[in-house]
Amino acid sequence: MVQAEGDDERQGPAGERIVDSVLEAVEARDQARLSELLDPLHAADIADILEQIGPTDRREFLALWSDEIDGEILSEISDSIREEVIETLPPEVLAEAVRELDTDDVVDILEDLEEPQQEIILDALERADRVAVEQAMSYPEYSAGRLMQREVVVAPEHWTVGETIDFLRRAEELPLQFYHVILVDPRMKPQGYVTLGRLLSARREVRLTDLVEDSFRTVRATVEEAEVAYIFNQYHLISCPVVDEADRLVGVITIDDAMNVLDEEHEEDILRLAGVGDESNLSDGPFATARQRLPWLVANLGTASLSAVVISGFEATIAQLVMLAALMPIVASTGGIAGTQSLAVAVRALATRNLTSANAPRVVRRELMAGLLNGLGLALILGLAGFVIFGDPLLGAVLGMAMICNQVVAALGGVLVPLGLNRLGLDPALASGTFVTTLTDVMGFFVFLGLATLVLL
Amino acid sequence: MVQAEGDDERQGPAGERIVDSVLEAVEARDQARLSELLDPLHAADIADILEQIGPTDRREFLALWSDEIDGEILSEISDSIREEVIETLPPEVLAEAVRELDTDDVVDILEDLEEPQQEIILDALERADRVAVEQAMSYPEYSAGRLMQREVVVAPEHWTVGETIDFLRRAEELPLQFYHVILVDPRMKPQGYVTLGRLLSARREVRLTDLVEDSFRTVRATVEEAEVAYIFNQYHLISCPVVDEADRLVGVITIDDAMNVLDEEHEEDILRLAGVGDESNLSDGPFATARQRLPWLVANLGTASLSAVVISGFEATIAQLVMLAALMPIVASTGGIAGTQSLAVAVRALATRNLTSANAPRVVRRELMAGLLNGLGLALILGLAGFVIFGDPLLGAVLGMAMICNQVVAALGGVLVPLGLNRLGLDPALASGTFVTTLTDVMGFFVFLGLATLVLL
Repeated sequence: MVQAEGDDERQGPAGERIVDSVLEAVEARDQARLSELLDPLHAADIADILEQIGPTDRREFLALWSDEIDGEILSEISDSIREEVIETLPPEVLAEAVRELDTDDVVDILEDLEEPQQEIILDALERADRVAVEQAMSYPEYSAGRLMQREVVVAPEHWTVGETIDFLRRAEELPLQFYHVILVDPRMKPQGYVTLGRLLSARREVRLTDLVEDSFRTVRATVEEAEVAYIFNQYHLISCPVVDEADRLVGVITIDDAMNVLDEEHEEDILRLAGVGDESNLSDGPFATARQRLPWLVANLGTASLSAVVISGFEATIAQLVMLAALMPIVASTGGIAGTQSLAVAVRALATRNLTSANAPRVVRRELMAGLLNGLGLALILGLAGFVIFGDPLLGAVLGMAMICNQVVAALGGVLVPLGLNRLGLDPALASGTFVTTLTDVMGFFVFLGLATLVLL
Repeated sequence: MVQAEGDDERQGPAGERIVDSVLEAVEARDQARLSELLDPLHAADIADILEQIGPTDRREFLALWSDEIDGEILSEISDSIREEVIETLPPEVLAEAVRELDTDDVVDILEDLEEPQQEIILDALERADRVAVEQAMSYPEYSAGRLMQREVVVAPEHWTVGETIDFLRRAEELPLQFYHVILVDPRMKPQGYVTLGRLLSARREVRLTDLVEDSFRTVRATVEEAEVAYIFNQYHLISCPVVDEADRLVGVITIDDAMNVLDEEHEEDILRLAGVGDESNLSDGPFATARQRLPWLVANLGTASLSAVVISGFEATIAQLVMLAALMPIVASTGGIAGTQSLAVAVRALATRNLTSANAPRVVRRELMAGLLNGLGLALILGLAGFVIFGDPLLGAVLGMAMICNQVVAALGGVLVPLGLNRLGLDPALASGTFVTTLTDVMGFFVFLGLATLVLL
């Protein structure tokens, strides 16, 4: 029995000392010690250790311990190092490992592998499983069909509780996890489901149809996995039957898979908002890391040049009043922060479907008003400071006015850019940040220097 | 039966047309039509509609329809408008609504209410439930104790499958959702659990102890909810017993609650990274929105002034070569993007516990190298462009050198700031963005103008 203790003890997955001990055992090539350390651990924690150690240590670790890698560990390790791990596994270990997995986990592993490695794994499967996996792989990437397990527990609609329990007791092989018995009609169309809790607490003669859940819903196999995660989260589902185009049952998705998708969607949002490719991974090396991030940096070089062009249009003004060069980044950078704030709220609200065309006009108006209010507040502070420090009320006024304009632009840009991308069917998180900060930079410099030219010279 | 259809049809929770129809019915004060529209909907979708309409419409909606608000809708609506909704409910409707909820949902509702409203709800509960809720409220905010439901299904260790099923069939009231039977010793200490699937598929004479799950773990009631979400996600739990300081069972947390916490944690990360208070909500008005965002904007005003001070130190340089003022934001803003990239990766990795003290040194080295590589790449582009446009190889060299320095500073700052905050026990997402962009702005301006002064004048 494992227990999470302490209030503030937020340590690594498997504790940090254990990583050090593992590395010591690897260095000493002490296989027995390694097993002693790892055997009590959950597969997820072993996978985390594999990810946290460096590539050299990982190679040595695998050379010592690859025989012990089982299906569960294989499905827990992240895509970025899975290929590397699979290459070191003896074929019979790999075959054994994939055979113990549910088909959805095999599909999850296959998806990220190259063709030849896919073949090795498919060959290792039993015939029926291979067919099931190949069928799942025929659904589009990131669809419900890829996410589902084929192993389902079904019962005809007319069965009673007793008949169902007798059937379950006789069944040779049940899925590793199932939470409902799905009622199907003779053509395998799902008609409802009964939770196991209800099945257990009802008398044997009760009919299944009297126990079905109100919350029953199904998804099409072609629906995007992000949609699946949304449905699970929105309706608090534990499992959800998957149907084909003819509404026939083809599999079931369980909540742990949906939770995983939700987690990946969040990762994607946070990384895309920051302009990092979503393939980014902690175990990537510096070259891979640099390559992922370079595109946005180069794009930013281009957009930043826009600011440079705007500023150079005011070189005559700056030449006359050099301190404008020192003050202009204040307006631009505060606008950048405001734009980022408005953007984060909008991207998150779009992701959770709280921002729809029903309330978009109201949210845009709200952002406009909030930008105006904060612009006024900041203008007051900055205008006063400008006046006190430089003794020039006009300079204070220019700073304040520019601030108000740029805060409004920032607030509007932060919500309109993701709404626009969403309308175009693009991911609202993608590139939004670059658009918005370019907008606030260019506007910030333009309005401040423009006003300064009009008012101060 | 409800079914999610279509691949790319990503519409609002309850569809957007329905929001319009609801608003029409509200305007026409047509109670029957409103019920006709809302009765087929899931409580979560009704809650979303309430959140998406404006405050005035919401008041009119509630005046018409508050009698129909039940416990499920109440627990689905977001904290930000719940108080508003509760105030409009007739006392007997409120009492009826909270009585049908599990205790964890009542606690979730109570947490965000003011004292007098809490009393109204507590008074509405049956005596046993009130005691349970008050006990849960005695645990710290954001702890497992607040998250758990008190309703548990337990069995003595020595029971067989048959005895357990008979007990469940006789039980008067079972929790709305349960996925395991928890085995306890005579002092109520949990010893393991059996999934309902195993219970159903085993023969009646099998002992429960032969069916217990390997994955069994418990959490202390005082553990933070973020830790609970991590454990569910890491170990693919469906439910997890909660124990007190003496290891006695006090409740159970189910995966839907953990999924909810995971979702809230992500929201917090994305909003905090962007410098928005995590209490931010789409249904807040413009004043509340402005007030939440102002603190970071004012803070940024302060940090941006640092840049202004640095630049003003180079006024003599700028006066001699005004185009430096136009070029300097390029170095600073590209640094800001690089810092944000590195920061997002680090914050996310800390949140998922993939970044620990075991791999921190390697990750920091990687960021340093990646920053250097991207700095070199950008320097090459920018240096060449500077040379081609201005015909001055020295200016190109200054731009390039400044870019390299600032990229390295950005990459290091992006990982060291959140690591440092984490080490101090603070949320790594909090204020990281402001720290990092201040760093890259100040360094960008300083290095570029400093080098320009040395080399070009």
